[in-house]
Amino acid sequence: MGLSRIEALTFDVFGTVVDWRGSIAREAERALAPKGYGLDWPRFAERWRARYQPAMERVRKGERPWTNLDTLHRENLLDLLREFAVEGLTAAEVDHLNRAWHRLDPWPDVLPGLDRLRRRYILATLSNGNIALMVNMAKRAGLPWDVILGAEVAMHYKPCPDAYRISALRLDRRPEKCLMVAAHNGDLVAAGAVGLRTAFVLRPTEHGPHQTTDLLAEHAFDVVCDSFTALAERLGC
Amino acid sequence: MGLSRIEALTFDVFGTVVDWRGSIAREAERALAPKGYGLDWPRFAERWRARYQPAMERVRKGERPWTNLDTLHRENLLDLLREFAVEGLTAAEVDHLNRAWHRLDPWPDVLPGLDRLRRRYILATLSNGNIALMVNMAKRAGLPWDVILGAEVAMHYKPCPDAYRISALRLDRRPEKCLMVAAHNGDLVAAGAVGLRTAFVLRPTEHGPHQTTDLLAEHAFDVVCDSFTALAERLGC
Repeated sequence: MGLSRIEALTFDVFGTVVDWRGSIAREAERALAPKGYGLDWPRFAERWRARYQPAMERVRKGERPWTNLDTLHRENLLDLLREFAVEGLTAAEVDHLNRAWHRLDPWPDVLPGLDRLRRRYILATLSNGNIALMVNMAKRAGLPWDVILGAEVAMHYKPCPDAYRISALRLDRRPEKCLMVAAHNGDLVAAGAVGLRTAFVLRPTEHGPHQTTDLLAEHAFDVVCDSFTALAERLGC
Repeated sequence: MGLSRIEALTFDVFGTVVDWRGSIAREAERALAPKGYGLDWPRFAERWRARYQPAMERVRKGERPWTNLDTLHRENLLDLLREFAVEGLTAAEVDHLNRAWHRLDPWPDVLPGLDRLRRRYILATLSNGNIALMVNMAKRAGLPWDVILGAEVAMHYKPCPDAYRISALRLDRRPEKCLMVAAHNGDLVAAGAVGLRTAFVLRPTEHGPHQTTDLLAEHAFDVVCDSFTALAERLGC
């Protein structure tokens, strides 16, 4: 498969590296339960996430100028709070809850896997999250990224080809020297279309116990595995 | 001095973190001595570096479109080889010698200092070096950056105000939450002008034993010290 020529691993983050659903549910409960709200917290997380792609799509289509994910998340949060009839938060409280996306926990295999992978490869984020979000998350969780790339560096949201193409360019690596690691078929198909190698990591509960998508690799990716430690094994680290 | 509110340290790299003169001299000798050249290697390094500011100045002035430092370094190297009457290198040999800037060694106090500083602060590069250069250098030398910022992320070369301003913006920190660390008065004055806090680190042999510039802090910077371990001490790390 020519995996021996890979020099950099580029990672999707939300869902692949971190459990956004469980972490957002926890953060929302922490913020809102003391105010007397008893919501379906995982549902709150899912409904926030449901606004993610539509918000980016307006940027991708050029219907609005470049806007980073913290800003999109905050706009979506204001909508979400209306949907759940949550009222009376101060601007600072909204900001803190919005930055719940900076406080997501990694899946249990992530830190041991990355610790092995970092010895041989450049580890880069290639996420739609903005730089500050990625840095704050990494600092809190101990994620050993060598460099933050992705949407805010490329100024294009995945799955636009330029999000992947420009990330490889900034590493001064030809795309085939980069291995895109993601739990989402669509992300890998888009990365593969511009020449990156592809590794599918199964995350069967990203969307909760009744997940129906991304339960298997739907294409001939270079690697298919179910954890970052298995990925390290597969790459001989 | 309000240093307790600082959340991120932003580092100049060439001269402040790494010894470009000694490292380039060593790399040039490694590349060219086997071909029979006996040059004044430190002078070769200095003459390469002398072309650095003029090359960036054309970009700053808008006389040419954005061009990253690897590209400027390579153009300057071709000039330099003519100056030293070095002939007959292949394109691959020129590329390898050009990437000597990716293989610079840190000053001896840097790794111990950064290891202390990283526990409390976000550590970011704010260099004119491009992303790939910074990543390759960090991976080789073990520099524990949390994020690569600076010229190629901001698309402005220091000391343009936007190089500093946009770097702080990407961290989602107000400028006064960032401490610019540099061995060069001019860099710190420019950072301070857009609101960053400033730390001068004396590097009295960056330009060799007869250095005449930046031998003292010429302005009222927030910190003045002579090593990264002293900086860590000063910040209580």
